[in-house]
Amino acid sequence: MKIGVHFTLPEVDPSALAGTTVVVVDPIRATTSIVEALAHGAGGIYPTGSTEDAVRLAASLGREDTLLCGERKGIKVEGFDLGNSPGEFTEEAVGGMKLVMSTTNGTRALATAAEADRVVVCAFANLSAVAAAVSADDEVIILCAGREDRFAIDDALCAGYVVQKLVEAADEEPDLDDSAQAAKALAEGLTLSRELLEHSAAGRATAEIGLADDLDICSDIDRHDIVPVVHDQAITLAGA
Amino acid sequence: MKIGVHFTLPEVDPSALAGTTVVVVDPIRATTSIVEALAHGAGGIYPTGSTEDAVRLAASLGREDTLLCGERKGIKVEGFDLGNSPGEFTEEAVGGMKLVMSTTNGTRALATAAEADRVVVCAFANLSAVAAAVSADDEVIILCAGREDRFAIDDALCAGYVVQKLVEAADEEPDLDDSAQAAKALAEGLTLSRELLEHSAAGRATAEIGLADDLDICSDIDRHDIVPVVHDQAITLAGA
Repeated sequence: MKIGVHFTLPEVDPSALAGTTVVVVDPIRATTSIVEALAHGAGGIYPTGSTEDAVRLAASLGREDTLLCGERKGIKVEGFDLGNSPGEFTEEAVGGMKLVMSTTNGTRALATAAEADRVVVCAFANLSAVAAAVSADDEVIILCAGREDRFAIDDALCAGYVVQKLVEAADEEPDLDDSAQAAKALAEGLTLSRELLEHSAAGRATAEIGLADDLDICSDIDRHDIVPVVHDQAITLAGA
Repeated sequence: MKIGVHFTLPEVDPSALAGTTVVVVDPIRATTSIVEALAHGAGGIYPTGSTEDAVRLAASLGREDTLLCGERKGIKVEGFDLGNSPGEFTEEAVGGMKLVMSTTNGTRALATAAEADRVVVCAFANLSAVAAAVSADDEVIILCAGREDRFAIDDALCAGYVVQKLVEAADEEPDLDDSAQAAKALAEGLTLSRELLEHSAAGRATAEIGLADDLDICSDIDRHDIVPVVHDQAITLAGA
């Protein structure tokens, strides 16, 4: 098994992802929100690049059972139904609904992964389920959304926990690239907590807009045993 | 004090380096070679981008006391005097000579740092001297050369050791960005050794071209108590 990590999107050659399984991580907050939404019965999530694309897609999907979700500079886009706070994605709000979602970094990472054989969505909230789901694959690339093309420690730690679990589960020692070695060392040295996330750039930015409590759900490891997968531009539950 | 790290060059906005001290790291092998050369009496090192630029500059500096050094794909450029193996830069070879140097990643990192107030060159070979030299500066940015725009664990670990020393030496707790926090955690979790470098992408590539023994010098911490600084496009010893 080969395991690679990309800490930032500019490092990625998207065509080199063909034939691999890509795990997209952006725990503050896009991938945590996606996990929450699917865990609470959302029928499918459609990541889009621009907010204009999101509005168009929601109209074509049928506005009556589609919610517009997402943020710019962390804050809910004007006219959208939901922002990007994991706690918003309750069963009441999203059960049975389609969600069109546009976020700053997370949806760009999902677009970058388009050529992979298999794309799964991972946050701290579901990392053991994701690690178990990809542990038999030949080549796993963990794609960190990063923060405006810069390294994000929350992404790196999440990637590191996945690497750690894959190494533990493997019969033969996997081949790790430099980033995967570093992410694993990070996971061995740091322990996830709300406080750790508060010291990250993404956590500080979240606190600055008054949403520090989002970090409670973002730092809650394995609260859901689900694996969101991307198929035909929609994210749904594996096996659903 | 603020401490930042860039793991790859595409993350860097060069204009944002104005007003800062930049520490360039590329221990396998460019910055180790620079440290060796200056420790052994080289009169100045002139990093250049292309090999053609290197040849032109050497001609204008005066070929009788100038050596052409550097690599492409790790191997000494044809017609050059020296490659990029730290062990080549002995007193016999480089004492009193000017060195024009072109390497794949290291010289690009030095060019990226051009707008900084102060640029110093760091390898494992001189990291305590560098940390001491920049410990009173307001903002220190450690610039990893990376490996063809990808994360390199040898660079990250070297950066982490510098961060660790700066944090230890500081009166007030420095403000670390995400990358600096991660590099420090890496330095706390990993111990430099030739074997660790052999597992890095740069180390494997060096071994593949038959130069694995270069990693002995590259992994020899604090073998020199010198601080190479960049002034007017030349690298010389601080205080020289």
